Amino acid sequence: MIAVLKQGTSEKQIENLTNWLHTQGVDTHISFGKEHTIIGLVGDTSKIDAELLSSLEIVDSVKRITEPFKNANRKFHPDNTVIEVGNTSVGGNDFTIIAGPCSVESEEQVMEIAKSVKAAGATMLRGGAFKPRTSPYDFQGLKADGIDYLIRAKKETGLPIVTEIMNANHLDLFLDVDVIQVGARNMQNFELLKELGRTKKTILLKRGLANTLKELLMSAEYIMAGGNENIILCERGIRTFETYTRNTLDLSAVPMLKELSHLPIVIDPSHATGIAKLVKPLSLAATAVGADGLMIEVHNDPPHALCDGAQSITPETFADVCDAVRKVRSVL
Amino acid sequence: MIAVLKQGTSEKQIENLTNWLHTQGVDTHISFGKEHTIIGLVGDTSKIDAELLSSLEIVDSVKRITEPFKNANRKFHPDNTVIEVGNTSVGGNDFTIIAGPCSVESEEQVMEIAKSVKAAGATMLRGGAFKPRTSPYDFQGLKADGIDYLIRAKKETGLPIVTEIMNANHLDLFLDVDVIQVGARNMQNFELLKELGRTKKTILLKRGLANTLKELLMSAEYIMAGGNENIILCERGIRTFETYTRNTLDLSAVPMLKELSHLPIVIDPSHATGIAKLVKPLSLAATAVGADGLMIEVHNDPPHALCDGAQSITPETFADVCDAVRKVRSVL
Amino acid sequence: MIAVLKQGTSEKQIENLTNWLHTQGVDTHISFGKEHTIIGLVGDTSKIDAELLSSLEIVDSVKRITEPFKNANRKFHPDNTVIEVGNTSVGGNDFTIIAGPCSVESEEQVMEIAKSVKAAGATMLRGGAFKPRTSPYDFQGLKADGIDYLIRAKKETGLPIVTEIMNANHLDLFLDVDVIQVGARNMQNFELLKELGRTKKTILLKRGLANTLKELLMSAEYIMAGGNENIILCERGIRTFETYTRNTLDLSAVPMLKELSHLPIVIDPSHATGIAKLVKPLSLAATAVGADGLMIEVHNDPPHALCDGAQSITPETFADVCDAVRKVRSVL
Amino acid sequence: MIAVLKQGTSEKQIENLTNWLHTQGVDTHISFGKEHTIIGLVGDTSKIDAELLSSLEIVDSVKRITEPFKNANRKFHPDNTVIEVGNTSVGGNDFTIIAGPCSVESEEQVMEIAKSVKAAGATMLRGGAFKPRTSPYDFQGLKADGIDYLIRAKKETGLPIVTEIMNANHLDLFLDVDVIQVGARNMQNFELLKELGRTKKTILLKRGLANTLKELLMSAEYIMAGGNENIILCERGIRTFETYTRNTLDLSAVPMLKELSHLPIVIDPSHATGIAKLVKPLSLAATAVGADGLMIEVHNDPPHALCDGAQSITPETFADVCDAVRKVRSVL
Repeated sequence: MIAVLKQGTSEKQIENLTNWLHTQGVDTHISFGKEHTIIGLVGDTSKIDAELLSSLEIVDSVKRITEPFKNANRKFHPDNTVIEVGNTSVGGNDFTIIAGPCSVESEEQVMEIAKSVKAAGATMLRGGAFKPRTSPYDFQGLKADGIDYLIRAKKETGLPIVTEIMNANHLDLFLDVDVIQVGARNMQNFELLKELGRTKKTILLKRGLANTLKELLMSAEYIMAGGNENIILCERGIRTFETYTRNTLDLSAVPMLKELSHLPIVIDPSHATGIAKLVKPLSLAATAVGADGLMIEVHNDPPHALCDGAQSITPETFADVCDAVRKVRSVL
Repeated sequence: MIAVLKQGTSEKQIENLTNWLHTQGVDTHISFGKEHTIIGLVGDTSKIDAELLSSLEIVDSVKRITEPFKNANRKFHPDNTVIEVGNTSVGGNDFTIIAGPCSVESEEQVMEIAKSVKAAGATMLRGGAFKPRTSPYDFQGLKADGIDYLIRAKKETGLPIVTEIMNANHLDLFLDVDVIQVGARNMQNFELLKELGRTKKTILLKRGLANTLKELLMSAEYIMAGGNENIILCERGIRTFETYTRNTLDLSAVPMLKELSHLPIVIDPSHATGIAKLVKPLSLAATAVGADGLMIEVHNDPPHALCDGAQSITPETFADVCDAVRKVRSVL
Repeated sequence: MIAVLKQGTSEKQIENLTNWLHTQGVDTHISFGKEHTIIGLVGDTSKIDAELLSSLEIVDSVKRITEPFKNANRKFHPDNTVIEVGNTSVGGNDFTIIAGPCSVESEEQVMEIAKSVKAAGATMLRGGAFKPRTSPYDFQGLKADGIDYLIRAKKETGLPIVTEIMNANHLDLFLDVDVIQVGARNMQNFELLKELGRTKKTILLKRGLANTLKELLMSAEYIMAGGNENIILCERGIRTFETYTRNTLDLSAVPMLKELSHLPIVIDPSHATGIAKLVKPLSLAATAVGADGLMIEVHNDPPHALCDGAQSITPETFADVCDAVRKVRSVL
Repeated sequence: MIAVLKQGTSEKQIENLTNWLHTQGVDTHISFGKEHTIIGLVGDTSKIDAELLSSLEIVDSVKRITEPFKNANRKFHPDNTVIEVGNTSVGGNDFTIIAGPCSVESEEQVMEIAKSVKAAGATMLRGGAFKPRTSPYDFQGLKADGIDYLIRAKKETGLPIVTEIMNANHLDLFLDVDVIQVGARNMQNFELLKELGRTKKTILLKRGLANTLKELLMSAEYIMAGGNENIILCERGIRTFETYTRNTLDLSAVPMLKELSHLPIVIDPSHATGIAKLVKPLSLAATAVGADGLMIEVHNDPPHALCDGAQSITPETFADVCDAVRKVRSVL
């Protein structure tokens, strides 16, 4: 870490600052320049609060050289993390395909979709039981019943299940859930992250709508600091000025996160754009860019559906996507 | 609400859709155009899930005409909401000035700052006891002790206190807290919002870093839907591409929110930019633009401070800001 | 186009508005609702100024149903545009690979790179002669000499050349240039676009840093309205809050633009992230997502290079990227 | 400027780099750390290309300590720049109020508005003759005729005039224009900036929709490097994710730019939000935050106007804004 001091800082002030830094367990190395004095901080700077430091009157700016995340940092864990989930694994040679409905609506719906996505090549089943909705008047999910239906589908198909948690008080309901999802809006719900850090559950941590990759890794670090290293990162689109697509899928995040961290990363092309037609091309792109897997919304099409189709892709389209993904994987 | 249908939609599909809409309690009004058919939804559309509707295969796009928020909507509550907090009120003729340290560090610190900000004109005392930090290794606050010190300062000075909650399970600790703050990162922690909706506490709801004004009002709606109408909105800077300032303070939000809603709104110039020198000009701007109050970080400067000053402004500067704010208020 | 009128609009005002709309060559269709009156505009609405319309006191909001671009619109030109450039074509079955140095530095440099990228599979040569630089003190390019060196490399290798124009007054220098690039910063330099519309040159139009896809297509429309339909769109990263990568490459833009328009689109992964290591994975992703080609910075490594490598990838790495791209193409 | 080198950089590589830096006219100062080697660049680093430097294989990152702008930098020009324009001045004790129609539509229109805004307190007249429009099918302005009408209004009222240039080839038409505006879309049209640097005209330089303050100052630097120091900066809203307002007015830019630069800065509240009702509160906020002036769209309301009002505020409202601005100025 480097702190650039403002012009006109006195020797006494510099001494006060370096003395304090030493009490924080880091060594300092000072370069007196004509215009600026620069203090290099040497040692374990992950516990130094860069924001506090840069807020000091005499400090012009602070630059981290080593990243503030440690457990999630590839530098200290060069090998890819591979997480066993049921009979499949994430982050290794297997390619993860998590599929299922946006919301769990009924046992029949989940069961039918589970069977069809398994047949097409899905390795896990997803479905929302607790739904984070912008409006209090929108459907909030089937809650405990929804999880129950997912567990029945898991028993029937053997697919591990992924579903979102919104409240640490609900953890008891997630005992038989294989992967607990933390949604984009809760990525910096640090209280929830801490609670999940105390479990041994695999956590699928979605990037927040306006969160940097560094913040995503710091949120992973919250969970890991508690002792739980089973984390799957998920990029699902970030908020930009573009309006044709709901969000902007940041596929550069995949190779960038691979460089920075050893954690596996999956891509959710369904939420990123909100447009069913874009799911296939973006799934192929995510595969080609080096993601460890995909998370895709699939909806069946029962006779009572409102209209002849919905945003989520159908099991047939999903099977087509899986085929194409396999082909791309075969040449990488 | 208007739904524009895609070209080529069949009459049967349109009938299915309108039948379903009728079961949702709204009337429909159809215009058949040469290129597009348009369905107007009439009645209480706040319960219609626009996202679901727009995801349907036959729907090109959906446009809300009436806003999805009701309790927070000025249309249905033309008069400004005025909230009594201790011996002061927010949203009426009083101008609210909430001041205090970023974090509560000790009883002495809080007590000293409380006295000095009261003398300068603050109407409430703020201080962080539970601190949301990006890094698990940064200081997380004094927690229950921090709240305890705030309460002692309240007893001593008479200033109502404002402090942040991060976990609904901590609500018991907030019994003597006058205003409970929901931080930017928890603005869409819907579980927390629902819990707060069940209390009668005044809630200071901060806008998320990348949340629209509509989403801010929908989060207020979550609390109000539970029966708690004591909400103060707070704009504290949004995330943009600009890097000189930490965030970009969106002062247009004030007159815009005043147009849309009857809830009071205060401005936090300290977090918005992260630059102490900008607090005064932005406080004056916030006053001039019509905000109901300010929330300002003030830090005392004890002998053991690291350096001769810190990011937060000092009590002296704060007194100067209060003076200038009063002058601007006098001519509005 | 739909105009939603404000509550309380009088019949006289509505009549004034519809009369004026009729003089603009569109028909109107009015729905009187309980809360809002809605005017549907029927006919050629591309000449209606939506911004002007929505600025009227009585208008609540305006929604376009048909897009404001016509020449660039796939609806009116269902077939993909295929542009012949030298002995290659863009937008058809060929996959375009434009490669070369960021800046033309010398004849030897360009010649050497041209030969090596041709050998690796490039279909066109790029190089900057006029360089748009944020700082007036940074290198501004070799200008006319730079174009001259490119033309010599074209004669030697047969590769068509692509280089950027910054001033319509320089057009004479571009006579032997095959593809004229309009850079991101000039995407809305409408005067330049109009001049290029009067030529028959193929234009590579880069998306601006903060421009929407609609604006990109409207800028293409400027050129096409002048009679020049030879346009290649280029996505090169947009400005977001993320800081690890210089910009955020928006790969969803490819299938989205394919849906909206018949124009070919290429991806520039080099500028998007500013990180050499990310060029290969993003090139593969761009290929998989359906782009018509790539634009990649390649730099040779002469003995006098400052250090052992630079941001641009080397000819060896480029050859490796081309191989991998071919493999992905083979399975699509 | 500091360059942090990557781990594993060899001594030979460091020597090559420092030798090259010396040929660029800067001295170097090296700190060998345990993990990273840091090179400090001392001297005139404004000509060092930070992007080139950071692109080198051995360089991890580059951090500027002194800003890359010199002529625009307050450090080297501590006193505020005051620009005489006609009988008024910008940046000194006078408060600048530039008012007029968005587009010049006719001589009568301009003349009438000019008189009324002068009576209300405007110090300059604005009006668009060349209009940058997103669509080639939208009204592009009256061009030379528009400028002619403005000049007539100037003769009649004595108000200096401000109008936008889009093409350096039109400069002859601007001989009698007092202030030449560079619009947001042309802020990085470097060819245009260079041409304007060769004139002695006062330039009103608008911040681009997605440009940082540093980039704004670098564009000012382009003009100043050519010898023209008469520049007025203008903040007019930046592009964010918020949709209620057209753009987000960044009022923090005012005190921030005042800190960084000696150039005057005015605020355009009309374009920033696109909402007439927000012009007054934002004008007051701009005044309170320390801006040197305002630029406000004012439209008269002739009998043939489409409807009873338009987005631009009326002369009556403008007079009310001017009054309120004066009151706020009186207490600052």
